[in-house]
Amino acid sequence: MPALVNFNRVVVALGGNALGDTPEEQITRVREVAPILLSVIAKGNEIIITHGNGPQVGMIQNVFSAAHEATDGQTPLMDLPECGALSQGYIGYHLQQAIGVALHKAYKRWHVATVVTQMEVDPEDPSFATPTKPIGPFLSSDEAKAVKDEHPDWTLVEDSGRGWRRVVASPEPRKIVEAESILNLLDNEFIVIACGGGGVPVVRDYSDKGAYKGVAAVIDKDMSAELLAEDCYADYLVLLTAVEHVAINFGKPNQEDLTEMSVTEAKALLDAGEFGKGSMEPKVRAAVKFVESRPGRVCVIGSLEKAAEAIDGTSGTRIHA
Amino acid sequence: MPALVNFNRVVVALGGNALGDTPEEQITRVREVAPILLSVIAKGNEIIITHGNGPQVGMIQNVFSAAHEATDGQTPLMDLPECGALSQGYIGYHLQQAIGVALHKAYKRWHVATVVTQMEVDPEDPSFATPTKPIGPFLSSDEAKAVKDEHPDWTLVEDSGRGWRRVVASPEPRKIVEAESILNLLDNEFIVIACGGGGVPVVRDYSDKGAYKGVAAVIDKDMSAELLAEDCYADYLVLLTAVEHVAINFGKPNQEDLTEMSVTEAKALLDAGEFGKGSMEPKVRAAVKFVESRPGRVCVIGSLEKAAEAIDGTSGTRIHA
Repeated sequence: MPALVNFNRVVVALGGNALGDTPEEQITRVREVAPILLSVIAKGNEIIITHGNGPQVGMIQNVFSAAHEATDGQTPLMDLPECGALSQGYIGYHLQQAIGVALHKAYKRWHVATVVTQMEVDPEDPSFATPTKPIGPFLSSDEAKAVKDEHPDWTLVEDSGRGWRRVVASPEPRKIVEAESILNLLDNEFIVIACGGGGVPVVRDYSDKGAYKGVAAVIDKDMSAELLAEDCYADYLVLLTAVEHVAINFGKPNQEDLTEMSVTEAKALLDAGEFGKGSMEPKVRAAVKFVESRPGRVCVIGSLEKAAEAIDGTSGTRIHA
Repeated sequence: MPALVNFNRVVVALGGNALGDTPEEQITRVREVAPILLSVIAKGNEIIITHGNGPQVGMIQNVFSAAHEATDGQTPLMDLPECGALSQGYIGYHLQQAIGVALHKAYKRWHVATVVTQMEVDPEDPSFATPTKPIGPFLSSDEAKAVKDEHPDWTLVEDSGRGWRRVVASPEPRKIVEAESILNLLDNEFIVIACGGGGVPVVRDYSDKGAYKGVAAVIDKDMSAELLAEDCYADYLVLLTAVEHVAINFGKPNQEDLTEMSVTEAKALLDAGEFGKGSMEPKVRAAVKFVESRPGRVCVIGSLEKAAEAIDGTSGTRIHA
């Protein structure tokens, strides 16, 4: 399998789970990841880094919800858009610091910047009619009633006997509001960190001349990474996760790890429901979309630990036309 | 008094208090501020926006401290650097959204970007030896003992009978780590939001090849704004606050509002202890440093509400050579 040739533009997506659960874990993890990312650049590629924020945004949201509750509303509630923005600052700071450290140790004079990113979604996205993404803590039926009184627009559902939970939509990402900022920095040879957590979800408010406003939603970070890769004219999209390969019959005796997959094969496997919802399925879907978006584009799904090998083509699953 | 001539570069610093205490207040306030900022650009100036984060970072820190306590340490503690980074994402998101709205309504195609900013401070800064800036909640003597056991490197002081509180250093800002990112975006006609809350305080760790690492400290946002203005080759530094003018004999029957002040006068008044520590004093100090940094530089201290007039020279206090 050929290695990536030089001077490609590569979008690398890190999973939020890989970033750890505490600030100490996070800075340790990103400092392990940073030299791997630099090794990609050292081969002549440009990189754009994006990341998930599931555990981090969940923690931020839970902490503010609990404080709001405990102080009888004196501590303000942070809704999902603000929690996403908070997480972008928190994760971006550590990532850019860690990459800065790695650059410094490698005597490289590149620069790194985190761009706080909003992601436009369509208010008519069908997912808003049937929200399914659970967020925040489990609530008793009484607590759920109180929350619903305070927030009549929230959807709460009972989760198989474990209590009530708020669910939000997971709309398709449509437009990176800060695309120009990202492109501008890239064109000046910056390492850019963008679209953290899929971006802060915003919609155009047509009652307010089409101005953007935040909306409670969870955007899949792999689909956002795909859009980022398209917007940045990237050649490669690298989706890093906890496993080394995409597999069929995952977890069964006949599990088969795939080292490559054509788009046609990937679509057939998606249609057959072969991949786990919310884990491998959105990654393969993002891969298909990216590969189909322009001839020559390639997506690699691989493990964070073997990111350099995944990009070299000696690890991971390569999805191609 | 002459108005600012066209095509100057202006750093505008907003106070954290002006941003409100809740996300709803914050988005409302910044949407009021945004058209004022655009009116500055409309006159041909370039602007760089920076902001305080006192109330916001305090809220974030208190919420995480309380959650850390309430969950017996299961919720991670967020120390000041991480809280600062969280606040930059939170405030930057609202500011860039609000400015985006204002641009959209004015049919302007400029772009706006928030750069997550680290600020290098000197680990030998004398303030680290005698930290004085109180942060976080008041603690009983038992609580203080427990906190000190968990964090032996923290300094806790008793605050005039109200309990114990952690104090941190307030070192001078030395170097904007992301200066190149900011300049790059500026040179491409972006409206840049940077150095939020004075920047995330970092020091070089010489045991780790000089890599940056976060440090618990509070950096004065006016002094950071001054450094930002120097680094960006700005002509004007505009420090916005709650009052329209710098005053002498403030709050006394013979209070006198100043419409202008030479650097020599400002230094004499600083030496005489005329200005409130932590409020007007650092602003005047930043003004002096900026005006003295290059011939022709001017600083205006004025009210947020009359920002446009302050920049026009019909409100506020103008500090000049």
